[in-house]
This record gives sequence, C-alpha cells and structure tokens, in this order.
Amino acid sequence: MTRQIRLNALDMMCMGATPGIWRHPRDRSRGYNTLEYWTDLARTLERGLFDSIFIADIYGVYDVFSGNADSAFTHAVEFPVCDPMLTVPAMAMVTEHLGFGVTSTLTYEPVYSFARRAATLDHLTNGRFAWNIVTGYLESAARGFGLTEQLSHDQRYDFGDEYLQVLYKLWEGSWEDDAIINDKQAGVFADAGKIHRIEHHGKYLDMEGYQLCEPSPQRTPVLFQAGASGRGRQFAATHAECVFTAGLTPAATARTVQDLRARAVEQGRAGHDLIIYNALALVCGETDAEAQAKLEDYREHVDIEGSLTLFAGYTGIDFAGLDLDHPLRYFESNAIRSFVEGFTVADPDREWTLREIAKFLGVGGFAPIAVGSPATLADIMAHWMAETDIDGFNLLYSVTPDDFEDVVNLVVPELQRRGLYRHEYAPGTLRAKLTGAGRNHLPASHPAACYRR
Amino acid sequence: MTRQIRLNALDMMCMGATPGIWRHPRDRSRGYNTLEYWTDLARTLERGLFDSIFIADIYGVYDVFSGNADSAFTHAVEFPVCDPMLTVPAMAMVTEHLGFGVTSTLTYEPVYSFARRAATLDHLTNGRFAWNIVTGYLESAARGFGLTEQLSHDQRYDFGDEYLQVLYKLWEGSWEDDAIINDKQAGVFADAGKIHRIEHHGKYLDMEGYQLCEPSPQRTPVLFQAGASGRGRQFAATHAECVFTAGLTPAATARTVQDLRARAVEQGRAGHDLIIYNALALVCGETDAEAQAKLEDYREHVDIEGSLTLFAGYTGIDFAGLDLDHPLRYFESNAIRSFVEGFTVADPDREWTLREIAKFLGVGGFAPIAVGSPATLADIMAHWMAETDIDGFNLLYSVTPDDFEDVVNLVVPELQRRGLYRHEYAPGTLRAKLTGAGRNHLPASHPAACYRR
Repeated sequence: MTRQIRLNALDMMCMGATPGIWRHPRDRSRGYNTLEYWTDLARTLERGLFDSIFIADIYGVYDVFSGNADSAFTHAVEFPVCDPMLTVPAMAMVTEHLGFGVTSTLTYEPVYSFARRAATLDHLTNGRFAWNIVTGYLESAARGFGLTEQLSHDQRYDFGDEYLQVLYKLWEGSWEDDAIINDKQAGVFADAGKIHRIEHHGKYLDMEGYQLCEPSPQRTPVLFQAGASGRGRQFAATHAECVFTAGLTPAATARTVQDLRARAVEQGRAGHDLIIYNALALVCGETDAEAQAKLEDYREHVDIEGSLTLFAGYTGIDFAGLDLDHPLRYFESNAIRSFVEGFTVADPDREWTLREIAKFLGVGGFAPIAVGSPATLADIMAHWMAETDIDGFNLLYSVTPDDFEDVVNLVVPELQRRGLYRHEYAPGTLRAKLTGAGRNHLPASHPAACYRR
Repeated sequence: MTRQIRLNALDMMCMGATPGIWRHPRDRSRGYNTLEYWTDLARTLERGLFDSIFIADIYGVYDVFSGNADSAFTHAVEFPVCDPMLTVPAMAMVTEHLGFGVTSTLTYEPVYSFARRAATLDHLTNGRFAWNIVTGYLESAARGFGLTEQLSHDQRYDFGDEYLQVLYKLWEGSWEDDAIINDKQAGVFADAGKIHRIEHHGKYLDMEGYQLCEPSPQRTPVLFQAGASGRGRQFAATHAECVFTAGLTPAATARTVQDLRARAVEQGRAGHDLIIYNALALVCGETDAEAQAKLEDYREHVDIEGSLTLFAGYTGIDFAGLDLDHPLRYFESNAIRSFVEGFTVADPDREWTLREIAKFLGVGGFAPIAVGSPATLADIMAHWMAETDIDGFNLLYSVTPDDFEDVVNLVVPELQRRGLYRHEYAPGTLRAKLTGAGRNHLPASHPAACYRR
C-alpha cells in the first residue's frame, strides 16, 4: 500500500510568515493577536484533516541588519510576536482532532512551571498537545532574560538533554498510573504512596518536586523538533517523535531523512519512530497558469529589506549597504555557505545574488516551493514521498488563510482521489493518531520510558 | 446614590475550593482540568454581571502536616493544580464582558516571558485580563524551581517592586501610542523610532529588551493584590487597582479598608483608586431554613484532616497527632495567633478548638459566611457595604457551580430589585468597566505612569 501523506501547517503568532506579505490585500495576518484568526484557521485545518498546526516562536528581535532592530520593526519581521501557547485552548474549543504543536524555548522557561503548563494544555485539549523543542538562538533574547551571553550552540543542546530529563521525571515518573483513587465514600482522592517526589541534581539544573498536575492523556506531550545541525539531529533522533526538515530538493531531503532514521536506530529506537515532515510552500491555482500568476503576485509583495533582515539574523552577517546584485558565493562565511549550498543543490548552475535570495526567502522562507494546479501539486508531493522516505509535509503559506484554504479545498480532495490521503481522523489522542490506536504514551524504546515506575 | 455592589468570583484550578467538598454529590470540581468546566462557569458569571473571575494558584504542595505531603495528596488539598492562565482564552471565547484575574507568582516566572504572556492574554481577551500579583510562600515551590531557600517575606515584596518596575517599563514604556503605522502602500508597519529598548539594572533583576507584543488594549493588565501583612498592604496600596481582603467582621474589615485607602493616599493616589472586595462565602436557599440546612450539609462534607493540612501550610505548624479538641489559644505561635485573633474578633467569647477551626475553614475558607434566603443575604451584604467602605465582594463557593448559580439566579435579582446591583455591563475593557468609560490605561497617579514616554 502506498504510504499516505501527512500534513502539518506552520504558522507563527506575528504579522505573516514572510516579510512583506502582510501588505497583500487578501492577507489576514493582522489578526494574529485575535482569537478569531486562530479559531478560524483551526477549523479550516481540521476540515482538511491536518495532523496538527505547528506554531513557531521567537524571543528577541532581528537586530543584525544595520546593527539595530529598526528594519525588523519597520517591516514587521517576526515582530511583534505574541505567546503562541495561549492560542491553544481557544483552538481546542472549536476542534476535536487537530493537534497543537507549540514552540517553547527551553532556555527561557523554568522547567518546573513549563512541566505544569504543558500538562495543563494536554489536559485541556484531551491529549492533543505537542511541544516543539527549541533551544533559542538570538542574543537579543538572552539579554531580555538578563543573561550576559548565551550558552554555545552545543551547550544549549546539552542543557536541552538535561531539561528533558527533568521533564520526563515529572511527566512520566512522578505519578503512577493508578495513583488516583477518587473514592468519595472513603474520602480518598489519591494514593499518596503512588505520587513521587522527583529529584534532579545535574550540571545545569538542580531541583526537587512533585509534578503538580495529575497525569494528562499523553503524559509527555508529542515531541516536535526541527534542529538541522549535526548536534540538532542527534537531539532529534534521541527525543523527537515528529521531525521537521527543510530540504530544498528530494535528493538532499532523502539524505537528511536517512541520516535521522539511522541516528534513531543508534539510539535504540526504530527509524520510523520518527515522523518526518519536510517543509513545502504550496502555491495552488485551478490551473498551472493561474498558480504561476499567483506566485508572481506573491513575489511582488516580497519586502527585500525585510527578507535580508531575517537572513542577517540567521547568518549573523549584516547585509546593509551591500550590493544586492553581488553573487552570494563571495561571502567568506561558514554560516552563509551552508545556506548557499542548499540553494546550489537546488539549482547548481545558478549564481545566487542577495536580491535573488531575498526574493526567494520572501515566498515560503527556506523551503521548496511547489506551484501548480491541484493535479500538478499532487504529482510533486507524490514524487517527494517516493524519493525521500518522508512521512508528509510541513506546509508553509504566503497569504493567510487563503493558501491553507486552497490546500484544504483543492489539494486534499485531489490527494484523496489518488488514495494518498485519509478520509477521516483516527480516534484518540494526537500520539494515538500518529502512532496507532491506544498508544497514548511514549513507547518503551523512548528514553523517557526509563523514568517510569 | 447608594454605592452599587461589585461581585467577583474566586476559584482555583484544582479539586474544589476547600478540602473535602469534592466528595459532595453535586460538586463538579472534578472537571477542573476540562475546558467545559471553565467555559460553563464563565457563562454563568457573565449572566450574573460579575466583574471578573479570580483564579487563585499555588506552586508547591502543603507538606507541613505530618512533615510530608501525604495528606495533601490523599485529601486533594489544592493538589493536583493546573496552570490557570490557560483557561482564559477558552473563557474569553464564550463571554464578552467578564474579566479574568489570574494569579501568577512573580518569583517563579521570568519577567521577560511573563510580560509577553500577560500582554498576549490582554490582546486575546480584548482588554479583559487582570493579574493577581503573588510573591509565593511555599518552601516546596522554591525547591521545585531549584532554589535552596526562599527570599524572606519582606525581600519578596522588594523583589516584587522591582519586577513590577520592569513590567511597567515593558508594558508602558517600550512602545509609544502611535508607533504602529500599518501602511501597506508604503510598506511600513511601525515607526522604529517609537519602539524603545528598555533597560533595567537593579538589585534583583538585570535585563535589556523590547516589549515583544504591540500594546494591548489595557497595556498593563488590571492589577489585583491580596497581601494581608503590613508590607503586603503597602505593596497593594502602591501598585494594586483591585484589592482582595478577608476581614471576618464588618468592623475588622472597615479598619483594613481605611488603612489601605490611607496608604494609597500616602502614595499619591486617591483612596478610592483601590477597588476593594472582601471575601464572602454565600450559602443561599429559597428560605433561611433551607440555607441553614444546606450549610449543615456542606459542613458534613468537610474533611478535617484536609482542612488541618491547609492550616498547617498557612501557619507552619504541624497539627498531626494533636488533640483536636485542644483550645487554639494555647499555641505559642505568632503565625497562629494572628489567625486566632481574627476568629476572636468574630466571636470574642468563644474558645476555638482545632476541630472547630477545621470545620470553619472547610466551608468558605478564611472568610465570613453569610447564610440565608436571597433577602437575608442582600441584607447582610448591604450591611457590610454600609459599615466598611468596601466596593463589593469576592465570593467563595463550596459546591461548584451550584453555589455560583444560586448567586446569579437568586441573589443578584434581589440586589437588583433593591437598586444595589447593575442591570448591564458598562462597555469597554475591564479597566474601563471598573474605573470609567474610556479609561483603558492606568491613571497618571499610578507609579507605572512615570515609565511612559
């Protein structure tokens, strides 16, 4: 049987996914700070049988371009940005199946309060909560939290390993499954002998306490991860259940997927314990020509300076004042080289300039773009599935919510006709939907399992 | 004109307000971790034109009784407890006017992420968010956050003053009112010159950063405070807009209210800038006799050991193994003496025993109880209003949601008939509803105002 395609939607609680698109006449991202925006979107995605909505997040501001944050403010580059956790209870009110994957930066959230917050969301959603684990990378965020400097890249992942250990102890180890008695007659709510104080005395974290929430339907929320570096992949292969990759071609993606699954096996897990979604920006029209026209329209709305502000933040290079038509390969920077290599794979004979990169980034960000009629898009998606061993796609939008509505109204039915997409949700928690009926908790092969009693 | 009565409802995201009442056949508090419980309650309170729901919170567990937390677990004493912030977006979905006052313990939430979280809730509720400022007092909570010891009581308030300074800078000072341009044609979202990085280099906090959210309808959420000590009152008189007192008699409450208003004046504010709600547990029946029978029924469900677990946590005294019929005045403890004095005022000739205290605590906690028909309750409330200079009541329940439904269905109409209660909500944000049309932001007399540009 052909593997069915899984879909996830990426969004962020700010003015549009990519710089400039907020100016598009149909774009509704100005409503990012309203309940209506998020509940409407959640209803649309559930109609399209999406696995989940993944809300990215960032603390801090993009202040590398020109050495300040002015261009980020002027062009609304992932700024302002609200706390995405708080959209979840409202979205849960209007849906029954959709999963909610929310980014929370572990460097900046005390582990004890985060353990309770995430468990509360898993309770309120009846087991549909997922956490996208992020370690944080902006210096400006570190300053907001009063840190004089960030941990190094690899230290942040070491810290992350320890942070997760504490969470596993709290979520999996603090309460036994049958701790709750709830006997009104006897006046006994819980068996105190089955609620355990956990301790952790590590390099980065030192604490003692009980998990304050009773076990939620999934205990540990579904774990998302999107790290791309070697250390990031190792972290994902160890902890993550859903991994978000951003390969620009099927061949590059296939290599990443193979590497991730091999690393999972090294960790004692099955390669396919990882559900891998590759980023994909879909631009859909009734016909290929209509879709192409739509892409051109979107590109017209790209904000070059806004794009470069984002790219400067990613790479640490201040592009302000540089010749926009300068070929990128002349930059002597490892950070930028890794980006350029990605593009080179996609189009090896092309000399990318700063302007071209900015335009490219402006539609879909650092993701491959698929443009065409529903039939063309289904062909492209099927091709990716066949070539890469991914499980599905993390869909990026330009104009919201139109682009998601196109997917739901046009692309999903086409995939269903081809037998490539389900016709209804599986029952149960998000984890059960993703991994099989009744599987509400992490499997025994996951490192969290050793903290159970 | 007679001053109208304001009502606020107190609840907590746990198994009932007072130990044991979860066993009552009509009690629905087992649903504390579901959206339905909170949205049903919010609808009821809005039907009753309540100002707001105030959700108390606690980190940590009550582990003084017997030197461990067993009795807290057995009797569900404010445990398990979820994160109350996350109920707000769902309650906001089903209401238009009700305010949401949520406790957040400043010792345990990094100020930079809290600033964003609270602002996000103010956005999502269209300006109906309030924050109940708590400094935290349980040692077990401190250990959960990896602290070897808590700050002293007064130091916690000093820390609180500084924490609020940082919040005021972020909420009031980081964005000017006209910073957002939102000009799609010009491609300018914000005027970067009107978004300011704030800095704070203090004794307890040291940080730099921009407020990540654009200004929310109220900017600073409405500030709740309930501290009872001298230092706590000073803190309330400086910062709070709504103050929650717990006087057991009108005379004692009147003295507290007078003191609070005088302290506000010393701070350069008006005495009536403080909206003061005194705690009150209402037990309502169609007749006085029915109400009395209801109170007896509630008292039957009081869990003595659970009550003493709570009382031990408050006072730091382990009551386990003591004679329950021992008069309380023999305890040589300042902590307990202040409690006993409260009771003594209420009933000077009575010798309270541990058992009686536990029974008393078990219905309504440390609050006066009013029992009777709607007419009797209205008489009592009117008497309190006349004798104390309070603005209204913070209503405690026993059986949820029945007790709140009684208030809404029986007491509110009686108060309305007497001209003591409004017939509709004022328009606008919570602050505008509380302090006057159009007054969305803190007044110039509030210490936050000096951080505005």
